[in-house]
Amino acid sequence: MATRIETDSMGPVQVDADRYWGAQTERSLHNFDIGRDTFVWGRAMVRALGVLKKAAALANAELGELPEDRGSLIARAADEVIEGRLDAEFPLVVFQTGSGTQSNMNANEVIANRAIELAGGERGSKAPVHPNDDVNRGQSSNDTFPTAMHIAVVSELNSRLYPAVARLRDVLAEKAEQYDDVVMVGRTHLQDATPVRLGQVIGGWVAQLDFAVEGIRHADSRARDLAIGGTAVGTGLNAHPDFGRLAASKISEETGLEFRQADNLFAALSAHDSLVEVSGQLRVLADALMKIANDVRWYASGPRNGIGELNIPENEPGSSIMPGKVNPTQSEALTMVVARVFGNDATVGFAGSQGNFQLNVFKPVMAHAVLESIRLLADGALSFTEHCAVGIEPNLPRIEQNLSTNLMLVTALNRHIGYDKAAKIAKQAHKEGTSLRESALANGVSGEDFDRWVIPGDMTGR
Amino acid sequence: MATRIETDSMGPVQVDADRYWGAQTERSLHNFDIGRDTFVWGRAMVRALGVLKKAAALANAELGELPEDRGSLIARAADEVIEGRLDAEFPLVVFQTGSGTQSNMNANEVIANRAIELAGGERGSKAPVHPNDDVNRGQSSNDTFPTAMHIAVVSELNSRLYPAVARLRDVLAEKAEQYDDVVMVGRTHLQDATPVRLGQVIGGWVAQLDFAVEGIRHADSRARDLAIGGTAVGTGLNAHPDFGRLAASKISEETGLEFRQADNLFAALSAHDSLVEVSGQLRVLADALMKIANDVRWYASGPRNGIGELNIPENEPGSSIMPGKVNPTQSEALTMVVARVFGNDATVGFAGSQGNFQLNVFKPVMAHAVLESIRLLADGALSFTEHCAVGIEPNLPRIEQNLSTNLMLVTALNRHIGYDKAAKIAKQAHKEGTSLRESALANGVSGEDFDRWVIPGDMTGR
Amino acid sequence: MATRIETDSMGPVQVDADRYWGAQTERSLHNFDIGRDTFVWGRAMVRALGVLKKAAALANAELGELPEDRGSLIARAADEVIEGRLDAEFPLVVFQTGSGTQSNMNANEVIANRAIELAGGERGSKAPVHPNDDVNRGQSSNDTFPTAMHIAVVSELNSRLYPAVARLRDVLAEKAEQYDDVVMVGRTHLQDATPVRLGQVIGGWVAQLDFAVEGIRHADSRARDLAIGGTAVGTGLNAHPDFGRLAASKISEETGLEFRQADNLFAALSAHDSLVEVSGQLRVLADALMKIANDVRWYASGPRNGIGELNIPENEPGSSIMPGKVNPTQSEALTMVVARVFGNDATVGFAGSQGNFQLNVFKPVMAHAVLESIRLLADGALSFTEHCAVGIEPNLPRIEQNLSTNLMLVTALNRHIGYDKAAKIAKQAHKEGTSLRESALANGVSGEDFDRWVIPGDMTGR
Amino acid sequence: MATRIETDSMGPVQVDADRYWGAQTERSLHNFDIGRDTFVWGRAMVRALGVLKKAAALANAELGELPEDRGSLIARAADEVIEGRLDAEFPLVVFQTGSGTQSNMNANEVIANRAIELAGGERGSKAPVHPNDDVNRGQSSNDTFPTAMHIAVVSELNSRLYPAVARLRDVLAEKAEQYDDVVMVGRTHLQDATPVRLGQVIGGWVAQLDFAVEGIRHADSRARDLAIGGTAVGTGLNAHPDFGRLAASKISEETGLEFRQADNLFAALSAHDSLVEVSGQLRVLADALMKIANDVRWYASGPRNGIGELNIPENEPGSSIMPGKVNPTQSEALTMVVARVFGNDATVGFAGSQGNFQLNVFKPVMAHAVLESIRLLADGALSFTEHCAVGIEPNLPRIEQNLSTNLMLVTALNRHIGYDKAAKIAKQAHKEGTSLRESALANGVSGEDFDRWVIPGDMTGR
Repeated sequence: MATRIETDSMGPVQVDADRYWGAQTERSLHNFDIGRDTFVWGRAMVRALGVLKKAAALANAELGELPEDRGSLIARAADEVIEGRLDAEFPLVVFQTGSGTQSNMNANEVIANRAIELAGGERGSKAPVHPNDDVNRGQSSNDTFPTAMHIAVVSELNSRLYPAVARLRDVLAEKAEQYDDVVMVGRTHLQDATPVRLGQVIGGWVAQLDFAVEGIRHADSRARDLAIGGTAVGTGLNAHPDFGRLAASKISEETGLEFRQADNLFAALSAHDSLVEVSGQLRVLADALMKIANDVRWYASGPRNGIGELNIPENEPGSSIMPGKVNPTQSEALTMVVARVFGNDATVGFAGSQGNFQLNVFKPVMAHAVLESIRLLADGALSFTEHCAVGIEPNLPRIEQNLSTNLMLVTALNRHIGYDKAAKIAKQAHKEGTSLRESALANGVSGEDFDRWVIPGDMTGR
Repeated sequence: MATRIETDSMGPVQVDADRYWGAQTERSLHNFDIGRDTFVWGRAMVRALGVLKKAAALANAELGELPEDRGSLIARAADEVIEGRLDAEFPLVVFQTGSGTQSNMNANEVIANRAIELAGGERGSKAPVHPNDDVNRGQSSNDTFPTAMHIAVVSELNSRLYPAVARLRDVLAEKAEQYDDVVMVGRTHLQDATPVRLGQVIGGWVAQLDFAVEGIRHADSRARDLAIGGTAVGTGLNAHPDFGRLAASKISEETGLEFRQADNLFAALSAHDSLVEVSGQLRVLADALMKIANDVRWYASGPRNGIGELNIPENEPGSSIMPGKVNPTQSEALTMVVARVFGNDATVGFAGSQGNFQLNVFKPVMAHAVLESIRLLADGALSFTEHCAVGIEPNLPRIEQNLSTNLMLVTALNRHIGYDKAAKIAKQAHKEGTSLRESALANGVSGEDFDRWVIPGDMTGR
Repeated sequence: MATRIETDSMGPVQVDADRYWGAQTERSLHNFDIGRDTFVWGRAMVRALGVLKKAAALANAELGELPEDRGSLIARAADEVIEGRLDAEFPLVVFQTGSGTQSNMNANEVIANRAIELAGGERGSKAPVHPNDDVNRGQSSNDTFPTAMHIAVVSELNSRLYPAVARLRDVLAEKAEQYDDVVMVGRTHLQDATPVRLGQVIGGWVAQLDFAVEGIRHADSRARDLAIGGTAVGTGLNAHPDFGRLAASKISEETGLEFRQADNLFAALSAHDSLVEVSGQLRVLADALMKIANDVRWYASGPRNGIGELNIPENEPGSSIMPGKVNPTQSEALTMVVARVFGNDATVGFAGSQGNFQLNVFKPVMAHAVLESIRLLADGALSFTEHCAVGIEPNLPRIEQNLSTNLMLVTALNRHIGYDKAAKIAKQAHKEGTSLRESALANGVSGEDFDRWVIPGDMTGR
Repeated sequence: MATRIETDSMGPVQVDADRYWGAQTERSLHNFDIGRDTFVWGRAMVRALGVLKKAAALANAELGELPEDRGSLIARAADEVIEGRLDAEFPLVVFQTGSGTQSNMNANEVIANRAIELAGGERGSKAPVHPNDDVNRGQSSNDTFPTAMHIAVVSELNSRLYPAVARLRDVLAEKAEQYDDVVMVGRTHLQDATPVRLGQVIGGWVAQLDFAVEGIRHADSRARDLAIGGTAVGTGLNAHPDFGRLAASKISEETGLEFRQADNLFAALSAHDSLVEVSGQLRVLADALMKIANDVRWYASGPRNGIGELNIPENEPGSSIMPGKVNPTQSEALTMVVARVFGNDATVGFAGSQGNFQLNVFKPVMAHAVLESIRLLADGALSFTEHCAVGIEPNLPRIEQNLSTNLMLVTALNRHIGYDKAAKIAKQAHKEGTSLRESALANGVSGEDFDRWVIPGDMTGR
């Protein structure tokens, strides 16, 4: 492997000549060999670092803190980071310095070297673009990394999560409308209860999704306050006084999402309550998905010896010999996503409580957990939608059969024959294993009256 | 013990003649002997049940579903429940039927018997007021209990939590203003960093509290949607179509807090995502309090061999012989509250995911955990405020001594003598254990220049 | 209220003359008004403090550190604490100093004053028994409180939890034997599967309980290592070198449970990993109970439109008109206990990680959460046993009906008519809604052969 | 891309001709596109599946259930899986069917096709080795996947975790011995306390590690009970009665770790309490590492304005100008690992509670979380050891300076001059900011006496 020498304040380091990163990234590779396979930062965070560095360069240039041409070189290199062309240059893992310093330096080094290259210079030369003095100008890891965290989280919410959940919501809303007429047994305490319409059941799921997304959107709106401009301890030392505000505005332009500099930069560095809030709201969504996925699989249980009132798509062989055994695999995958999101939320809540003085040093693990939850919830919701929800259909014969044997319909008789006689009919039916209608007839109710009085659909608040 | 006979649909039960409760409450006492000492419902939930039953009676009377006089009797009895005069009549524990049925029946029975008594009747006679037909008219445990849960939670937030946190916030805000001039060592990664002002430090805590309360208020605003009117499965069967809306309006009148009937009653019975959200937002507050309490105790650590930059009140003997050993006991109590709130939040998140079909049967444990968190956070914040925060004072000699030895001040020299020389001065000071000023003078900086250049307060973004 | 003066190193305090407690307890009452209603220490912890103080007095006396008569007076007073006669003298709450100092002092003060009284002296006189010099001799809160925590936890496990779980286990084991012949539909993924016997199902539950208890017992065996003898920082300063070992031996005598002094007293003060382990093992039990309670309620779901294969006792009115609607209320209470235990476990895990230097100051909240979990699991298991498990019965007609329609029995045909033909029979039965037998006959299998080949019980590994 | 046709019971599927996997793996790729980047199964699980399939083939062959040559072909192909040569053939993610069915089939398909190839056959031909009939003979996903989970977990514990923690433990134990003579300030409640030796401090950490590992080993010993032989529902239908026992024995031979068939196979399929236990014990280790990493960074805080009593290696630039600012980055990485492990543990505890009837369908997410925790704890411990713990050194001047100003040493004077006079000396020193010695001299103690009486090392229980 051909190498070149990169240097930082600790001295020279050998780096693969093909790589854009520099000394501090290289050191981190050796110092933090933790969970390498799966904990390398992904697209969302790398892109966010690119966005941040571009915005910072443009803001610094506009404020006269950086020569226009140097700012422009940085912006061009950052654009490549944003587009994903340099993802392989970000090899560091989550478990590193708790301020994300090394990933901030990774961005500085890669962008500097790429900018140098664009200017015809030599990687590692730090001229004409210096990773610290230019790319990191007016910045500290302590404010840039949380800024990138928020950019990544807000971006992922908007580009990934909302569309996925909206898709599920719309599919379900359509099902709710389509099957609004299907009257079925209600169930409370897992016990047969008075009837509901399938549209109401699914409508309840839709309402849960709407509630959850509204909560996430509120947290999202508050996560748009950025730490940028606080530099090392929140005082903004070494940054132009207008830098933070202007950089936030450039970030908004770049992302098309409205960000602002946070009012209190001390809190923005030393606490990440905003991410704790986002995670808490994601948990509400997870709770809702758990309910939905569970309902779907229980309604689809059977085919013979369960509830069996919903049919779901058969996507893969369940049992090779048993055609009706359709395992609710999408429900299973989705509820496992929920289990994971619960765990991530525990990580975030814990980490969020552990700040000291002017810094919380659990930044990377918090960002990672929130981003993972967003990703999994979005992927899981989409998978569930396309491979299950779109194909949900009522098993009408089963629904009608269940409904016809449902003794809770007896409540419709109360007003006509009185509570006592109605109760007697139900008791007799239960004891003798007959239908309510049979028992009613045996107790002197005419079939005509029964059919006129006991209309399940009328009991559903239509 | 003198007893009387009370009956329900399962038959007669002996009840202490002095008690207002009836058969179902008595059965629950025997069937659910779980955590009796500490898990009996407290004031908040009992009051909420009283509010609900009064509002329901007034709404039913207004809708012609209940004779005026009977409605009025119920309202009078419910008023006594609201005022706390019948708390001893609510002996049931949290761990019961998951819909809170028995506590709903407890309220029905107590109010009915007290109303009967007010009308001159005999307890247990069910005339002129019947616990089910009258007090529970148009209701089911499935909608009343979650309604009471929300009334209790919203009421406790408003009457207990907000004032307590506001008090802490205001005390801290005043401290921040009072000590805004105190320049002290900043610390990141627990390492000495560039200076901050004490006002900025405390201001960061205030910002965290404001952020947390704003989040709770948002969740609060959404928890005002009530399940009332949904009855057993969400369809509103057996309730007057206007009952839910009207009852919610009566609840608002009674509490002075604006409640509404939920748009989707199916979700309101089968999920309690709104409480999961409240709990998640309480966790944000807990995270903030953890940070504050930790900072306070670390700043107060010592007296000699720690940070020692803040003095806190000495409320009890720490060490009998060591006068300066002031244990940060209020921080300890508050952070233990946080640990408990984290646990409650885990309970709520789990329980919230476990609904099936038309009902979530973890209602009582969710309500209890949220109410406990509110209570503990409020009590803990108040205790911390009155016994610690009000007495926080900077230990100025220590602060100045620390600041004077802080090598990070060297960054102020950069612009005057260049980075390299400044670094050399810092390195030498570190190596030789001297002050920065001594080292600067040894390296050719004049004392005059040093004192003009190195002004910590100027580094704090004032 | 008549008062007397009690003093500590901070000076005099007015105390209710009827009370045994002294100045430090009184101060704590005022300084920590947090969660008063429900967070006062209960029997288990008060008894443990009594045991500890008695053992310490006896050990000190034996070592010549305390005059025999004074040791004996302390032991007599401590006996009253152990027996529960002075519980009202322990009014402090969990949320106090994180070392439990005030509860340790509460014990010292109450025992000293009671001992003084037994000696004919005057409360508050500190003669002939001094709360610090005598009752607390050779001790510090930092070692006594964790010692009492372990005594309480181990005692509660042994006196409360094991018998309760054993009772449930034995009831279930008997059911498993009694119903070992009942062949029923197996279910995986909530879908019909090949048959199992009810005895196997319940036997699986029993195995889970056995596994859980064995794990708890292992943690219990390690929780018997006591911090006693470490005094303030683990070095044992001011305690006789043999004190810890001897006190542990006295504690064993008093409780009938074998305790030991911990090998490493520094870890014993600064970490409570042993309680974290106990809590983790209690969670395993909670997981097992969740599975069992869920299975029971799903098997009992219906009566008509669910699984309906188990009948459970009807303990309270479910639906007043619907006789078969037996809500699985004991399952609901037990799963809510589980939700609470999960929360307590989160509290313990968090608190256990927060020690610093020579002390973990989350002792009280950890002890409380573990003790609450033990209590709730024991109460919940007993309640579930006596009000549900003892009455579980197979609903044989339903079981047979379900089994007879179970298409998975087709696998028994494979070896006789080949996989392809068997699959065809199953497919046709599923499509046409017929029984497997009908479909087999329609496909050329004789009824005789079918009945000889398809014997569900033979598929259960008997 | 050249493709071939693979078939399963649902029909034909196009598969990349270069791949060994078959139809069911291919379907899963399309049906479960969830968290693709990071949730593909890694080495540990793939190896475990290889071990399992090899052992099953050998057992079946030995029992006459499989021709010797076919068993041998399977074993050879499985060996390649074990060795890691076919890792790329396992592209499925964690979020799939909750029984791990598709990963089991992935193993069956890859091994079958590779075995076919070894036999000179054609991939996809299912001859001479059939993925279901031969590779999966006598097995079901429901017993094989949990078996593989346990193999993977136990193997990772033994090959990865124990050596890593042992290395940390041994390095610390050596430090404890090396620095046993270093007497330093003790600290409780973050406040100065009586002295301890550095050897005692570090010895406490070692004791925590030993305790944690012993707990994990106990859980490990119980995780060696395997589900193998239970097949679909625990009854062992379609497996030779001796298959499970024999396969377990083959697994032991292959891994060099002693495994057994579980006594109760119903519990082994429907619950994973053993993994919940392992996770709970890993949390104990995480708690211990949190304490250690926190202590290290606080002891190393400063360099000037913190505790500063330990020096740790400087691995990367902290502050470019401030030479003494050594950020405790390894502590930060390790405590972030802890935060993640806490989250994984929450996932496992939740998932473990969600089994129904004869199956728990959260198997993959549980296995993944436990394996991730093991990996991260091992990597984190090693990284902390090699990049931090090995270089921990006492900052002797600072330790001595702190100790010399520590007022708690006053307790050594008690026995010589009495408590009252000693307290007066301490109070005066605290008030006037002088050393204890100065104050003692000012109060009539001779310097000679002071130096003879106040010997910190004698207060450490040496």
